[in-house]
Amino acid sequence: MEKSQTIALCRRYISEKATVVPEHECKGILRKYGLTTPGGAFVETAEEAVRVADALGYPVVLKAVSSKMLHKTELGGVFLNVVSASGVRATFEQMQAGFRSRNEELQGILVEEMVRSGAEFIVGLQDDPNFGPVIMLGSGGVLIDILDDVTFRMLPVNREDVQEMVEELRGRLFLRGYRGHPALNEEAFIEAVLNVGRLGMDAAGLYESMDFNPLVVTSEGAVAVDAKIVLPRDREICGISGAQPDTRNLDKFFSPRTVALIGASTTPDKIGYVVADSLINHDYAGKVYPITRGGREIFGLRSYENLSDLPEKVDLAVVVVGLPLVPDILKQCKEQEIPAVLIISGGGKELGGEQADLEKEIHRKAREYGIRVIGPNCIGCFNAENRFDAFFQTHERMVRPCMGNIAFTTQSGTYGCSFLEEFEHLGVSKMISYGNRVDVDEADMIAYLAKDPTTRALAAYVEGIGDGRKFIAAAREAILSSRKPIVLYKSGRTKRSALAAQSHTGAYGGAYKVYQGAFKQAGILAVDSYEELTAAAKALSLQNPAAGTGISMISNGAGPMVNAIDLFEKYGLELAKPLPATIQKMEDHFPPFYICKNPVDVTGSATSDDYRFAMECLLDDPNVHVIMNWFVFQDTPLDEEIVPILDRINSISEKPILCGAIGGPYTEKMAKAIEAVGVPVFRTAHTWIAAANALVGWGKVLRRNAPVAQSTR
Amino acid sequence: MEKSQTIALCRRYISEKATVVPEHECKGILRKYGLTTPGGAFVETAEEAVRVADALGYPVVLKAVSSKMLHKTELGGVFLNVVSASGVRATFEQMQAGFRSRNEELQGILVEEMVRSGAEFIVGLQDDPNFGPVIMLGSGGVLIDILDDVTFRMLPVNREDVQEMVEELRGRLFLRGYRGHPALNEEAFIEAVLNVGRLGMDAAGLYESMDFNPLVVTSEGAVAVDAKIVLPRDREICGISGAQPDTRNLDKFFSPRTVALIGASTTPDKIGYVVADSLINHDYAGKVYPITRGGREIFGLRSYENLSDLPEKVDLAVVVVGLPLVPDILKQCKEQEIPAVLIISGGGKELGGEQADLEKEIHRKAREYGIRVIGPNCIGCFNAENRFDAFFQTHERMVRPCMGNIAFTTQSGTYGCSFLEEFEHLGVSKMISYGNRVDVDEADMIAYLAKDPTTRALAAYVEGIGDGRKFIAAAREAILSSRKPIVLYKSGRTKRSALAAQSHTGAYGGAYKVYQGAFKQAGILAVDSYEELTAAAKALSLQNPAAGTGISMISNGAGPMVNAIDLFEKYGLELAKPLPATIQKMEDHFPPFYICKNPVDVTGSATSDDYRFAMECLLDDPNVHVIMNWFVFQDTPLDEEIVPILDRINSISEKPILCGAIGGPYTEKMAKAIEAVGVPVFRTAHTWIAAANALVGWGKVLRRNAPVAQSTR
Repeated sequence: MEKSQTIALCRRYISEKATVVPEHECKGILRKYGLTTPGGAFVETAEEAVRVADALGYPVVLKAVSSKMLHKTELGGVFLNVVSASGVRATFEQMQAGFRSRNEELQGILVEEMVRSGAEFIVGLQDDPNFGPVIMLGSGGVLIDILDDVTFRMLPVNREDVQEMVEELRGRLFLRGYRGHPALNEEAFIEAVLNVGRLGMDAAGLYESMDFNPLVVTSEGAVAVDAKIVLPRDREICGISGAQPDTRNLDKFFSPRTVALIGASTTPDKIGYVVADSLINHDYAGKVYPITRGGREIFGLRSYENLSDLPEKVDLAVVVVGLPLVPDILKQCKEQEIPAVLIISGGGKELGGEQADLEKEIHRKAREYGIRVIGPNCIGCFNAENRFDAFFQTHERMVRPCMGNIAFTTQSGTYGCSFLEEFEHLGVSKMISYGNRVDVDEADMIAYLAKDPTTRALAAYVEGIGDGRKFIAAAREAILSSRKPIVLYKSGRTKRSALAAQSHTGAYGGAYKVYQGAFKQAGILAVDSYEELTAAAKALSLQNPAAGTGISMISNGAGPMVNAIDLFEKYGLELAKPLPATIQKMEDHFPPFYICKNPVDVTGSATSDDYRFAMECLLDDPNVHVIMNWFVFQDTPLDEEIVPILDRINSISEKPILCGAIGGPYTEKMAKAIEAVGVPVFRTAHTWIAAANALVGWGKVLRRNAPVAQSTR
Repeated sequence: MEKSQTIALCRRYISEKATVVPEHECKGILRKYGLTTPGGAFVETAEEAVRVADALGYPVVLKAVSSKMLHKTELGGVFLNVVSASGVRATFEQMQAGFRSRNEELQGILVEEMVRSGAEFIVGLQDDPNFGPVIMLGSGGVLIDILDDVTFRMLPVNREDVQEMVEELRGRLFLRGYRGHPALNEEAFIEAVLNVGRLGMDAAGLYESMDFNPLVVTSEGAVAVDAKIVLPRDREICGISGAQPDTRNLDKFFSPRTVALIGASTTPDKIGYVVADSLINHDYAGKVYPITRGGREIFGLRSYENLSDLPEKVDLAVVVVGLPLVPDILKQCKEQEIPAVLIISGGGKELGGEQADLEKEIHRKAREYGIRVIGPNCIGCFNAENRFDAFFQTHERMVRPCMGNIAFTTQSGTYGCSFLEEFEHLGVSKMISYGNRVDVDEADMIAYLAKDPTTRALAAYVEGIGDGRKFIAAAREAILSSRKPIVLYKSGRTKRSALAAQSHTGAYGGAYKVYQGAFKQAGILAVDSYEELTAAAKALSLQNPAAGTGISMISNGAGPMVNAIDLFEKYGLELAKPLPATIQKMEDHFPPFYICKNPVDVTGSATSDDYRFAMECLLDDPNVHVIMNWFVFQDTPLDEEIVPILDRINSISEKPILCGAIGGPYTEKMAKAIEAVGVPVFRTAHTWIAAANALVGWGKVLRRNAPVAQSTR
């Protein structure tokens, strides 16, 4: 009922080419959705205004109404605290005159009661370019620019989402008895936000943004004092995408039995040469068919002039020739029934203009022919199991990692290279660099990896996300159904300021805060740097999720401990409080100069057996959820028995164990030895804590979405 | 004049054991210092109150006055907006009754005019446990808890300091025409803060904290609406320390001709064994006298039972025996005229109780005998020039770096070890781990290193700072007179909440924000992690300060570029805008698929000569102040000629050059080769940017404190 009315109203004003829905109409919609607005009425004459004001009782507020006007306060369109009939009349005439003199349309005046003071919040809706309809909650009313205290979620939202949003605001303090004031009606506030969320879904696609600012919360309720609906104008509205991840034929990029290399070269240092080397001269056992112009032999293999010359159908075409040739190549692939094409070549949309158009054509053709395409402008895929890769990085310059259980998807080829090298010994399952994602996108790959039996956890580096809803749907499925964690670093966070003029909510369109909210909803573990990404990936690859936030630490050197604890607040971690019995047990065992609390300071005199004892004590303590050892391997008493000790404790511990150490060749040797038995070692206090945060976060996601029986683990 | 009156007043209330100076007296002081306070008077009867209110005009404010009361608002001691004589009378009686019923002393009532609304700020003074009198500036009035928007400086402050403080507040927006409001009187605000600063200096040692909250700023002026002076109670007041850095005999810790090792051992793995090995078996050429209980031979050297048995006077005693023996050892050192003692042994104040007392005794004896002591609980000193060290870390486990130009002082031995190893090839000049600093402290060492000809830049890791003023004085001297940059990481930042109840300003006592302000005043380059510290040290060791904030970047891989730019806002860096001619020159030279703006994207096809060309273009561009290359060494076209190219450009460039690369063995090999020619290479986007920030920051410090001629460089 309210939905159809809302849609009709928005459509009407859109057809009239209005900028905004007039305020009294906005408030009418809000009331239909169960929100409270100030008493008042829309009037067109001074007489009516006085009549309404008299009926409301003074003081009143007068607001200019126009469907063309974005910023009424700045245009002198709002008069607060008008205390008499003569004041109403004078104000009315003044506003009329003002609008007339500026030659602006004034449809009428909204006369409203003054709302008693309370805490001011903003609730906004926004058609985000990536996620479509999103809801924003913020504190501040007039203070919004100073506070920058806002949080977002993708619509629809449920009560739990809104409660979580409120918890993220510093302004929540206002709700709970701030400085001797009474507690406010938080329930009415949450109800109002949920109702705005419903409105946002119902009107999806018909608005650019909506601001309800301020929403005044008092001890009695929540009142929407101002309301603005900005209608779609210059840009395309995203709305609610229904696109679903498509994993069709993605296995051909990782496990092709046969590969055609289009653009193979016999000239060393040419990309077509290095890719041929990667495919032909290393451990990949599939059949490779080089396609060259001259048809020369490459690394002892016969090459062909055309795809149609090949003696058999191939699973995958790898393309390293110039992008302008690709549309025709796709046509040939269609003819040869090649289901998958990996385009390494760059020179597409990153250059704009004609090149961007070319990419659009490739997109169209791929969809038309039903061919899956990864790239262009990427380094391609790697499968650690069958050693397939088509990298244009030589083995001499870039080591390929061993088989592991972590998959990495990356928009940046640079980080693709460094991830593979960083995980040389820990291993990866699969890696995909997908560049300009003309067809296969992040969502498709996540959906594919969610079902990949060799992948336990996913790491992702993204700069932008194409279809946000499709992405979130894929991520949610991987996390909730396949129970695989996704750790993600989204860079490119500079706030877009172009939309700032339209609405407060709009100023955040495409900004990182929007992504952040959507990631939370999906249970994605979002991090803030590539270092945090690899740290979290290492931890998730090797260790269990944590059953709580209680961190315990053991060390023979205090410095990194102090730094680590400084980071706890940022990450929401807690220093576990070991049971008195645990402390006592350590005090009875250790020399008097060891400090037996959390962190356990075993001093420069510590042996590996001291670490063993402390770890075993903490393993038994229910208040401890993560065990973190920092090692100063430079200190002589710490012997190399620590490696088998960690191996044994790790094999019996349900609790995650994370180690840290920093130093030169000896320290590196020890760290590698420890990682070889399955316990990760971090080289900075920051990444050590980021790793703990990932395991704590993953534990929370699992508990929140687990059957009750599991959540008590 | 106002100074003596202020001192007298504070002393009087202190002698009366008052908690606070009553508000009307506080305001009297403020007026003496030139501040504006609301019109009004202190009264003791309802009749007087009415008389004052009638004279002021309504509405008025009534405030309870008591020297015992910390929080009058929460105690119902403040009534705003009293509009009539009868209201004044009723309110007066109500307050009296309220205080009587709670059995609290009420000295009288302050009747004041209501102040017209404006922007609310807080100005506070605090006797900080490290720095003595500090001033705080914040925005918010009642919002202070929500905003947490405060900044500190050590007193005294000048106009430039206060202006800088204002710039740091988000609340500065209020001053400058916030959302259509008129601009406020910023000049009056700054004047008021300067006057509060004078008061803070004059009354130094006589207050625990002062809050002037709110200080209401309007377009006309600034009015101190509320005033609270909290008098010293339970804790010692720090006041203004006059201690000066003392570098006497510090050279004995770095360049001793002769060393006695007290506690040398022949048992491998014992600390006394490893230290003997460090001193005797490596490159240190001085004479070493082992002191042992049995007098056995050590590494072929004769050992002695007592210091008095030694054949000559020694420069330095190194102590590795238990701390309880140290007071007596100091006595023997006195007798043998040993001027310097390095105590490696731990077990002091970190354990509290008796051990802490023992440390105090060592402190007293050291001062009494005039012996300089470093430690206890440290790893000691290292001099790269003469290879002197007394580390208990074997050479097998910890490499000693080559000679370089950066000095490192550290409270953490762990970071001492890792710094030495990290700078293995870049080199250090000197390193000092000073542990519990019973005598020689950070200030002494900085003063010493400021004069050390082998040291070009100082890096420091601190957890706490003893005498803050002494420290800042030493740092300022090193920076301004010796022109040596100091980069510093202060950890242990958890906010002390114990003082929160006393005053808003007091809640920050000892908190990092106080340190931050003092560091800024001294020109110290403060960083937020150990990784940033080493990155900045590397940059300052090898490269020039930057002449501005304009960063240019060149890369064959975009990912780290995107991350780096995300960090610009945090660090206050800017993406340089190259001149059109620079862009043109690159466009004319490079293939069309290179992107010739800033960053310069030379794509995966880039050769070392492409980097050369781009660097040379940017070198010539006056808008560019820092040149930053990111290398994907995994990409084949990038040849090894890049090393001599960087060598040559670095030798002629006044502009700093900073490189980045991340990867496996080949990338590490290339990075090391580039560092060997004097150009630093960073392994994360974050440290790469932190390094740039250090050079930009150091340039700013130099320009701010340089003669005009130099500042145009």
